[in-house]
Amino acid sequence: GIIEMKSSSIPIRQRFQTIREEKKTNLCLCADLTSLDEIIELSKQVGPNICMLKIHCDILNDFSMEKIQQLKNISRTFNFLLLEDRKFADIGNTVQLQYTKGLFQIATWADLVTVHVLPGEGIVQALEQSVQSIDEPRGCLLIAQMSSKGALTNNEDYVKGVIKCTEKYSDYVIGFISQSRLTTDNKFIHCTPGIHLNNTGDQLGQQYVTPRQAIDGRGADILIVGRAITDSINRIKTCEEYQQEGYNVYEQLRNI
Amino acid sequence: GIIEMKSSSIPIRQRFQTIREEKKTNLCLCADLTSLDEIIELSKQVGPNICMLKIHCDILNDFSMEKIQQLKNISRTFNFLLLEDRKFADIGNTVQLQYTKGLFQIATWADLVTVHVLPGEGIVQALEQSVQSIDEPRGCLLIAQMSSKGALTNNEDYVKGVIKCTEKYSDYVIGFISQSRLTTDNKFIHCTPGIHLNNTGDQLGQQYVTPRQAIDGRGADILIVGRAITDSINRIKTCEEYQQEGYNVYEQLRNI
Repeated sequence: GIIEMKSSSIPIRQRFQTIREEKKTNLCLCADLTSLDEIIELSKQVGPNICMLKIHCDILNDFSMEKIQQLKNISRTFNFLLLEDRKFADIGNTVQLQYTKGLFQIATWADLVTVHVLPGEGIVQALEQSVQSIDEPRGCLLIAQMSSKGALTNNEDYVKGVIKCTEKYSDYVIGFISQSRLTTDNKFIHCTPGIHLNNTGDQLGQQYVTPRQAIDGRGADILIVGRAITDSINRIKTCEEYQQEGYNVYEQLRNI
Repeated sequence: GIIEMKSSSIPIRQRFQTIREEKKTNLCLCADLTSLDEIIELSKQVGPNICMLKIHCDILNDFSMEKIQQLKNISRTFNFLLLEDRKFADIGNTVQLQYTKGLFQIATWADLVTVHVLPGEGIVQALEQSVQSIDEPRGCLLIAQMSSKGALTNNEDYVKGVIKCTEKYSDYVIGFISQSRLTTDNKFIHCTPGIHLNNTGDQLGQQYVTPRQAIDGRGADILIVGRAITDSINRIKTCEEYQQEGYNVYEQLRNI
């Protein structure tokens, strides 16, 4: 029906394809900074290089609806998707409130959010219901596998449950956060975090792979790069490096 | 060492025992309201009846550090614990920021937080590290089992992973959010959500049990009651009913 079309994620899928071809980038910048002002400035600088910007609104010391609207405008100007990495993980009734209410009102500005299917598929159903009234496309990425050490997602049954849910709610679920290719259905976008050209991990259980390993070995569509860029001396230059490396590997594979 | 003692959860365990005996309550009110002003008012009314108040700071339309400090003061006056049901579910580096930074600064006011061990035990280690500098006892509850339909927590391996983590970090982990008794070690507190005297569920996958089923059948120490109280016509009276029913069942079992 008309109402369902409103909040469908299908235009987001199409937008991702267009962005990748037009801007030649499969890079998602994970801006784990605690200042939204800084993220706004950074996103103006690296906007041309990224297909997606991933943030955590609840770590921002200066969050306001005015500033997040500014960021949303920048995402439209430079044509990248805005992903709130909320990792929703509660029962349906609660996530609906977390998605639409409170100081953040995530549903009003985030093109995409991340979701753990841990509480059962009711979580996805509830989130999808929440955005029926939003007059823009909305979608989510399900967290199928995590890059941290000893993650309890790392078993076959868990991943199967996530894939099943993705297929069932494919109007709203655009794809996965994953460490490997989970389905041959190309409509589902695979986003892989924990990407770094050099490092192999941090002190808190994070484990890294290179862009080539992620795209070639693991079938990633989008590379999520965080501290490799934000901790670098020249963020813009580093961002360009990851964009080029990521897109080169993608093109090489496509032409095989 | 002295620094570790500062943020240890041990005084919280002791406080829970004292509260239960002195106030004769094992009732946790789950105040899933979107107004902190309303929660403050409600907590003044039902403060004497509860051992814990569970909130979601990110659904509050009027959250401020001043108001949350007010709520914290009320929790001290009426002697109940303050639980932020954050359901942390990210890698260590991110949850540290979510716990201590942003508009909420959860670590500064929440006695307890809820945690999914899904990303691996690094999440608990990271949270515990974050509160080393907090000059009050802090602890967490691990979500072992969820009450929602089709929860992917509902398998033996997952619960085993949670129990292992609880035992390993027992200075910081005070117990579980669970649907059944998971360990014979009485130092771990079992909190059971989804309690209702009448209903059997909602339209979004939530499934209810009665206080007697939860305590007698499932070994709950604390009953988490939400909409049964907040949606009732007389919240204070309903709260008293749940307090009495819960404590009666507990006393009966203790005296067997």
